[in-house]
Amino acid sequence: MKHILLIGIGPGDPDALTLAAIKGIRRTDVFFFLEKEGDGKDSLIRFRREILAEHAADRAYRVAAGASPKRDRASADYQGAVEDWRRRRTQVIADLIDGNMADGETGAFLLWGDPALYDGTMQNLHDLIAEGRDDITFEVIPGITCVQALTAKHRIPLNRVGEEIVITTGRQIETGDPATVTNSIVMLDSRDAYMRLRDRPDMDIFWGGDVGSPDEVLIAGPLDETADRISETIKAQRARKGWIMDTYVLRRRRAPDASGS
Amino acid sequence: MKHILLIGIGPGDPDALTLAAIKGIRRTDVFFFLEKEGDGKDSLIRFRREILAEHAADRAYRVAAGASPKRDRASADYQGAVEDWRRRRTQVIADLIDGNMADGETGAFLLWGDPALYDGTMQNLHDLIAEGRDDITFEVIPGITCVQALTAKHRIPLNRVGEEIVITTGRQIETGDPATVTNSIVMLDSRDAYMRLRDRPDMDIFWGGDVGSPDEVLIAGPLDETADRISETIKAQRARKGWIMDTYVLRRRRAPDASGS
Repeated sequence: MKHILLIGIGPGDPDALTLAAIKGIRRTDVFFFLEKEGDGKDSLIRFRREILAEHAADRAYRVAAGASPKRDRASADYQGAVEDWRRRRTQVIADLIDGNMADGETGAFLLWGDPALYDGTMQNLHDLIAEGRDDITFEVIPGITCVQALTAKHRIPLNRVGEEIVITTGRQIETGDPATVTNSIVMLDSRDAYMRLRDRPDMDIFWGGDVGSPDEVLIAGPLDETADRISETIKAQRARKGWIMDTYVLRRRRAPDASGS
Repeated sequence: MKHILLIGIGPGDPDALTLAAIKGIRRTDVFFFLEKEGDGKDSLIRFRREILAEHAADRAYRVAAGASPKRDRASADYQGAVEDWRRRRTQVIADLIDGNMADGETGAFLLWGDPALYDGTMQNLHDLIAEGRDDITFEVIPGITCVQALTAKHRIPLNRVGEEIVITTGRQIETGDPATVTNSIVMLDSRDAYMRLRDRPDMDIFWGGDVGSPDEVLIAGPLDETADRISETIKAQRARKGWIMDTYVLRRRRAPDASGS
């Protein structure tokens, strides 16, 4: 049997690691790094290596790297492109396991944030097992998400009284009905989707780029007054280091006497 | 100045603590425990004391306990009852700070899960500062939520492809439109709200009671087949120890060929 740990390592702050994550790291024989070529995300790999240096330097462990497949972002068939990407990514993971793990060993993926939130690795492992790989077992160790780092830094609750919390993507904000956005947490926005709501005068934004890391930038305020500054900050961070991980809360202001609505 | 830490301690598993939470505990002079009388939640206090024994036994610290006010659950005016409860709770916290902290000291609340998710303490401190208490500052340290513990134990992602995540309460499931529930995470349900959807044949539930604690129970399956078993488990746990903290995901099944819908 080969046992895989999906370890959530948080949003980029080494202190966001849980004790369970550290214990997981300390029982791992081989760490798998899925590397994206040429997208400037070397610092993501570096962060993982720093965590290993901090918490496993006294142990013998191996690192095996695989090339993370790219999703076809030009495809008009979004679902089909995602399914194709998922199949290729499952194969890369199978090859990594088969090429680097002996029977009885433990392998681990160190996953940004929490393995349950917008990360495909759990699904890849379910797919492998569904295909008949009964020599593979896995467990999930939660991690602090960028959403939690964002609300902690802005010191805002995720919800107001009697209010639902919606976690969504930039893509859904771009295509959905703006009138339905009252308390949405937006992840994976690469296209300034908040701009679509900037003409609404009753909307606040709590935005964070690379929250919890040394590159952290926080901006909060009425969306119509802050949208340009956020867009410029994103551009500047991308120009400087090639990428940015940003998350934000879009929240419709409540009238003081209408807090119950 | 008096500095307050709101420290998320996770859902009941001592290994869910983050390094940041432990560092926060280790710079705290006085810990505030808000105790609910007569609701059998002694084990919640005990868990906090165990954490302090584990991580701060070599330090001098104080513990100050206050009585947590009760919300008027019989009131027809839900919002009014919540506002009244919030005001009284803010006063209890002000009294705890004034009676137990010297200038320059650090106080802390050890909060279940994450301080941003269904916990009022952050709002209480904002209210105190808005009332003019400019001698008080505070910071928030995120914690693993019961939602993350639940999805980790069931090994499910929080969302499927192209899908939003809704975090809501039992009260909202009871009063909202059942047809809109496609992927909802339900917290704070004390009234078996999932029963309202049990006649829908296309609904799965991933349920957990006291997830991450020694009392953990996990049940998953089609809602129509598992609802009774869940209800009985809740009753049994309540009878045995007076309370249960349960969380669940309600998820509408997708047809295999309709994963993009």
